[in-house]
Amino acid sequence: MQRHILRPAVGQKGVAGVKDGHGAPPIDPGIMCIHNSGTTEGEQAPMPLTIDRPTILENARLALPDGVRSGALAVQDGHIAAIGTPPAGDWTRIDLQGRLITPALIDCHTHIIHGGHRAQEFAMRLEGASYAEIARAGGGIVSTVSATRGASVDDLVAQALPRLDALIAEGVTTVEVKSGYGLDMETEIRMLRAARRLETLRPVRIRTSFLGAHAVPAEYSGRADDYLHEICLPALRAAHAEGLVDAVDGFCEGIAFDPAQIARVFDAARALELPVKLHAEQLTHTGGTALAASYGALSADHVEYATDADAQALSAAGTVAVLLPGAFYTLRERQAPPVAAFRAHGVAMALATDCNPGSSPMTSVLLAMNMGCTLFGLTPDEALAGVTRNAARALGLSDCGTLAPGLRADLAIWDVESPAELAYRIGFNPLYARVFGGAATQG
Amino acid sequence: MQRHILRPAVGQKGVAGVKDGHGAPPIDPGIMCIHNSGTTEGEQAPMPLTIDRPTILENARLALPDGVRSGALAVQDGHIAAIGTPPAGDWTRIDLQGRLITPALIDCHTHIIHGGHRAQEFAMRLEGASYAEIARAGGGIVSTVSATRGASVDDLVAQALPRLDALIAEGVTTVEVKSGYGLDMETEIRMLRAARRLETLRPVRIRTSFLGAHAVPAEYSGRADDYLHEICLPALRAAHAEGLVDAVDGFCEGIAFDPAQIARVFDAARALELPVKLHAEQLTHTGGTALAASYGALSADHVEYATDADAQALSAAGTVAVLLPGAFYTLRERQAPPVAAFRAHGVAMALATDCNPGSSPMTSVLLAMNMGCTLFGLTPDEALAGVTRNAARALGLSDCGTLAPGLRADLAIWDVESPAELAYRIGFNPLYARVFGGAATQG
Repeated sequence: MQRHILRPAVGQKGVAGVKDGHGAPPIDPGIMCIHNSGTTEGEQAPMPLTIDRPTILENARLALPDGVRSGALAVQDGHIAAIGTPPAGDWTRIDLQGRLITPALIDCHTHIIHGGHRAQEFAMRLEGASYAEIARAGGGIVSTVSATRGASVDDLVAQALPRLDALIAEGVTTVEVKSGYGLDMETEIRMLRAARRLETLRPVRIRTSFLGAHAVPAEYSGRADDYLHEICLPALRAAHAEGLVDAVDGFCEGIAFDPAQIARVFDAARALELPVKLHAEQLTHTGGTALAASYGALSADHVEYATDADAQALSAAGTVAVLLPGAFYTLRERQAPPVAAFRAHGVAMALATDCNPGSSPMTSVLLAMNMGCTLFGLTPDEALAGVTRNAARALGLSDCGTLAPGLRADLAIWDVESPAELAYRIGFNPLYARVFGGAATQG
Repeated sequence: MQRHILRPAVGQKGVAGVKDGHGAPPIDPGIMCIHNSGTTEGEQAPMPLTIDRPTILENARLALPDGVRSGALAVQDGHIAAIGTPPAGDWTRIDLQGRLITPALIDCHTHIIHGGHRAQEFAMRLEGASYAEIARAGGGIVSTVSATRGASVDDLVAQALPRLDALIAEGVTTVEVKSGYGLDMETEIRMLRAARRLETLRPVRIRTSFLGAHAVPAEYSGRADDYLHEICLPALRAAHAEGLVDAVDGFCEGIAFDPAQIARVFDAARALELPVKLHAEQLTHTGGTALAASYGALSADHVEYATDADAQALSAAGTVAVLLPGAFYTLRERQAPPVAAFRAHGVAMALATDCNPGSSPMTSVLLAMNMGCTLFGLTPDEALAGVTRNAARALGLSDCGTLAPGLRADLAIWDVESPAELAYRIGFNPLYARVFGGAATQG
């Protein structure tokens, strides 16, 4: 097994460190240490560290579901071997000097694969342009579909890497990536190939969602059902045949697809034995959340307009409510998701960046945590659960998201005193090191 | 003159790169290059670069006050020697491959020197605790005053460095730092000494503001005038005698000091020939803005409740309105500052982080730009002016903040196509390199 050297990663540019260490195609960096320049004026060179043998991270504080406990965490073969008291025997020991270990972060809802950006549209809107004027100028999702259709897999990957690198630098090890800006057979599949490629270029785990039912393309304007029949469902089957689809997603909204249309997509997913998730109740109440629950969806996402009955349905189905404050913030929405109802009915709540070029050009999970607290009233503990164990659930993953023996050693080590600090600060990254459990299982 | 090597800086941990290169006390890093991992999958090692002789940054796009122009920028002896067409002669030439050069960013309103943090208070509030309960638990500004009084200069500096490093990593070269968490003679002066120390540890320019009139300390509860007479004004004179004060600030609000009390502080500043600025009209309308204008203040800060008449007064006095969206966001305020009135009356608007442990634990100027646009409706051009030339004005600095011959070569070089991208993205840092003009003037 290769040797993994603790090396300085570099904040948002963290992957530069990976690339410096490995070149492309990179092998796994194991543990990346972010030089802790924060807590002292003196020099503090990263300590060398190997995880090529069973290793104990000791003198740590562990963020467990029921609270923080001081102790040690043992890593073996890329998995968590033990929690709390270190096992006896010949283990490599690393003193974390009281730093906090949380599960590595998971961004369970992103559109990081897309062509171009919409900064000019952002500027036009603030300069007073109407949506009609922006549309005439080629703005809106149409501009992203056009840029994405014109981009090769290499182009899409190159444009997504800085976004992915920003996430990785915050201790993210798992990222969900959607299609949905192609809206034609070739481009939907190309987006998913680009998403899979990311996993070969960075020490990260990618989960794909087919989102052909994201919008009706201009060439099918007014013919949504024809689009689903002629393009979306055939593209789904072709992408699945190529092994590109981990889940099937849709956008249930007046401006996109209605519940009956989404049901057709979900039926096709069910026939392929693929799990489903849905953009539901973001701008209006359309019944998408209840529909998603009726299909046992992994998650219903946005859900600002979900009702108490929707919350009950999500709870009964075990469907996660994925809250996306970045879009709520960017669109200046006023109705926050029904967090109290979700709590009352025991609905698991996740948080994600929704990274996309229009409504949420955000690449910070830590900021999503802060916004989840500040804008939606989540507690810092709920925010951390929302980007770890509940985010794992929203992706159908049971092997990560919690510090527990037997799970993947996907860990984030922080220069903070308490988990609350992760949600409290704004635009600050206290990551000390990231452990990607996949490391020790590769090479 | 020393040789300045282009070296990888490291995202938010940018200064680790500086320290790696120089140790402490560091000498100036000159140009720091952030490895551009974003725009290509291939390796792209930072190119070596020296600015120990006249240097032309060519094939660049220059963000000038009247728009973006392609061309070159010449740097000599730490200053901008020419804009546009490079002068003839034997210059070192650096091809920026079309990257955007803006003036380096300026954070003109911060409280980065303070003891402790308030993450637990943040959590308590979200868990439903009342302000009374938080106060009983020792929360609020009292907790920061207590932690700051208990901290040595070394403690204060060590705690502030990661915050400063986060700013520097975004291309900031000038940071305003306030006192105001000591509220006693010794601690107010200690905070300012710590602020000055930062300038010796990082390649950054610090401007201090004495903020003894930030709050009435518990031991003077109900005796604000006695506090001003016995502590605040003597502390101001002592700090000034030690050369620690660049400007005098105050907090004019029902919960702090009224205009008559602020006027006493401003009179003392005038007697010392120190410029003034004021926290005004943040939560209510108290008349602080008009007062500040009547004293020819450098800036009136927050100003959510400023009126059209206040805007006229600011315009007539040439006082900058410093907008602080981080506090507006964190406090969930509803009344945005009167941007339309500021535009109508030609009031210069700046943006800053207001980095502080209570109402704005924010360390990202880029995020302040995005919030200024998203929450206050500034245009991206106004946001950029707000963190460059108008921020310089708010600090009384005429030698930076604009790309113009003769000004300091404080530059930020970005991997973006347009200035609008700087405000458009959320939680993403596209900085390619930072030039600290002070560099070539030292050593």
